[in-house]
Amino acid sequence: MEDIAITNARVYAPHLPQGFYENGFITISAGRIRSVGLMPEFDAPDEAWIIDAEGGLVMPGLVNCHNHAGMTLFRGLADDLPLMTWLEKHIFPAEARFVNPEMVYWATKLAAAEMILSGTTTVADAYFFEDESARAFTEAGMRAVAAQGVIDFPAPGVPDPKENVAVAERYLERWQENERVRPAVFAHSPYTCSSKTLVAAKEAARRHNALFFIHLSETAGERDLLGEKWSGSPASYLHSLNILDEQTVCVHSVWLDEKDIDLVAESGAQVVSCPESNMKLASGIAPLAELRLAGVNVGLGTDGCASNNDLDLFGEMDACAKLHKVHRLDPTIMKARDVLRMATEDGARLLGMKDVGLIAPDMRADLIILDLNKPHLTPFYSIDNLVYAACSADVVTSIIDGKIVMDDREILTFDVAETMDRVAEMACSVMKE
Amino acid sequence: MEDIAITNARVYAPHLPQGFYENGFITISAGRIRSVGLMPEFDAPDEAWIIDAEGGLVMPGLVNCHNHAGMTLFRGLADDLPLMTWLEKHIFPAEARFVNPEMVYWATKLAAAEMILSGTTTVADAYFFEDESARAFTEAGMRAVAAQGVIDFPAPGVPDPKENVAVAERYLERWQENERVRPAVFAHSPYTCSSKTLVAAKEAARRHNALFFIHLSETAGERDLLGEKWSGSPASYLHSLNILDEQTVCVHSVWLDEKDIDLVAESGAQVVSCPESNMKLASGIAPLAELRLAGVNVGLGTDGCASNNDLDLFGEMDACAKLHKVHRLDPTIMKARDVLRMATEDGARLLGMKDVGLIAPDMRADLIILDLNKPHLTPFYSIDNLVYAACSADVVTSIIDGKIVMDDREILTFDVAETMDRVAEMACSVMKE
Repeated sequence: MEDIAITNARVYAPHLPQGFYENGFITISAGRIRSVGLMPEFDAPDEAWIIDAEGGLVMPGLVNCHNHAGMTLFRGLADDLPLMTWLEKHIFPAEARFVNPEMVYWATKLAAAEMILSGTTTVADAYFFEDESARAFTEAGMRAVAAQGVIDFPAPGVPDPKENVAVAERYLERWQENERVRPAVFAHSPYTCSSKTLVAAKEAARRHNALFFIHLSETAGERDLLGEKWSGSPASYLHSLNILDEQTVCVHSVWLDEKDIDLVAESGAQVVSCPESNMKLASGIAPLAELRLAGVNVGLGTDGCASNNDLDLFGEMDACAKLHKVHRLDPTIMKARDVLRMATEDGARLLGMKDVGLIAPDMRADLIILDLNKPHLTPFYSIDNLVYAACSADVVTSIIDGKIVMDDREILTFDVAETMDRVAEMACSVMKE
Repeated sequence: MEDIAITNARVYAPHLPQGFYENGFITISAGRIRSVGLMPEFDAPDEAWIIDAEGGLVMPGLVNCHNHAGMTLFRGLADDLPLMTWLEKHIFPAEARFVNPEMVYWATKLAAAEMILSGTTTVADAYFFEDESARAFTEAGMRAVAAQGVIDFPAPGVPDPKENVAVAERYLERWQENERVRPAVFAHSPYTCSSKTLVAAKEAARRHNALFFIHLSETAGERDLLGEKWSGSPASYLHSLNILDEQTVCVHSVWLDEKDIDLVAESGAQVVSCPESNMKLASGIAPLAELRLAGVNVGLGTDGCASNNDLDLFGEMDACAKLHKVHRLDPTIMKARDVLRMATEDGARLLGMKDVGLIAPDMRADLIILDLNKPHLTPFYSIDNLVYAACSADVVTSIIDGKIVMDDREILTFDVAETMDRVAEMACSVMKE
């Protein structure tokens, strides 16, 4: 692994009024940031690969805290439909017919290409055949938490639901030693897993010191579905099962009431919000301001691109900042600066990565460079414009774990054209159904 | 002007289930589409310039129905602030200090660059020193309706508000003969113009058969401000002044009640919605479903990029479709297909351009080509993905009035680097204040 120095950069610094400083440099060695400073002090390290940012902005790579990368094959397969029609008539049948290890591998690679090209360097994924996803992320050079799905129905790779937790636990064991791609468990939801399954899945995650993801209170309808098992809210149900703790990540968390927010906050559990998915599926608007005020750490996720339909965190940040303002009729909440933190340092912390998401010596070198020399980024008074005006295609370079994985919008770690071809072929079969 | 033929294209056809057909061609001559067909029938015209779309999608250029292009200098100058602080402490002082003809010219050129690069071929603009904007759009090769601002305060270029309508009328006269850039009047709002000014401005527009734009019911606070003049709603106030008619365009129209919607519908007036601006400034959510149901023609606008902060209609379409779904908790409203029509044919109709916004023989050749060969657009089951997954940078070619104004993301009509430099210089002065 080569040493790298990034020169002549605007450097992301969200604590400053403008949110960045001019004329900076960053040096990288052995996968970590070594020094950060101003160009007059720059002393080129011996044999370092120099990247002249030419006034571009260096910032921490974005952290996508929720995805179902395998579902990239189903991007936009069925839009603008009622949730249950979408799920039961389109998504579930397509999954039953087309999800296999090869499909998950290629669809995840396609997702990795899209994510890298849009500035994401770390992803938390959750799907079936997760060995294949973990393999794809490894080959793509991404940092990932890859969670094997657990559900009480026959699922891809798990025809007998009785085996779902055992399958997940064997998966955890296989990937235990991996550093950049870490295994985790994804229990689909309180209404698709029995209490026994939820408790067993959480215990398996605890035994392996792994994160436990669960869709929680995504829709108002969930409460009714859960009513047969439990008289309280989905959050209080998880609490009663002793499942909420620092290693539990509650995804969506749209329909949390005040008591739920307190429960989540007291337990130390964390929340991932996927505003664009919640908007498109008309699920609702999560109480993010209240959660953050209660001290809950909140990350951002795109969700799978069957329901978004992209994996672009720049779009997600924009939607998140704007949606909450108009929902509360208050332009001062969900500030651009807060949303940037959610998509970087807060997301990394959520995933247990204490040395990711910030630009400082000794942090992991997960960095992206944006070309600001574009009409839509002129003038550039503040980094708030990253939320309100930047787009995925402005990212020109991506470095993960000290390795250049994308340069000049060219992915260097795998063959993107082959990946698109393979998924396009599968899409032909999907369309013929 | 050269003849053009676009070959090997996917062709936008929103009435088809997928919304496009494969393997099409379009021929263009003397500024208009001449023929549309399938490649086997293609017979290359003599001496035509051939653009091989290589499977890219040809669609009508997008129509941005509301912008203040001169304000591009103030992009992101002050974010996440209360509306009145934003206006009174930042935007009004910056306008008083920095708006002059040269600034409007260059900022509008910068806006034109951003719009062309993000697929917009027609814009309705509204600002001061609108001669300069009209000149910039003319040089950029865009189709435009450029409206001179009228307000009852001292304004850029109109130090004496008593002259505001006369200034606008002389402007209408100067640009009367122009075909691609048409003049119009923009009365700022019912609360910043007296009834006398509103009536006089509308009369001037009528005398010149010009469109009359007005910000209407953007915020809940407007009603209170207007309370001193009129006991009813802003819409009923305009109706009482005989201002609502087919040539009146009500911008924003967020706080319309049922009666207002009926008034607007009966009058034949049209509405422009700017969802991203309304979200960011926390103004509210316009009743677009109701307006459309009542038969009101609705176009999409970005608003000026002091309050958005970009001029990207792909982002605007995405926000529009998703916002209304989550607001109503109904994923079937504001369908992608409807939003695409709002951003093309409906917008063109709103601006009185009956031969713009559709792909058909004899229509004006305002066309854009998108490169679909990208990870985030794979698979591409339907044109709905243009709303939910495409981004501005996917636009590779833009043709306006039969002339190629952008190819391979290079603008051919003016010097974009010079334009960015000029605006960046002005931005340095803005920052020093």
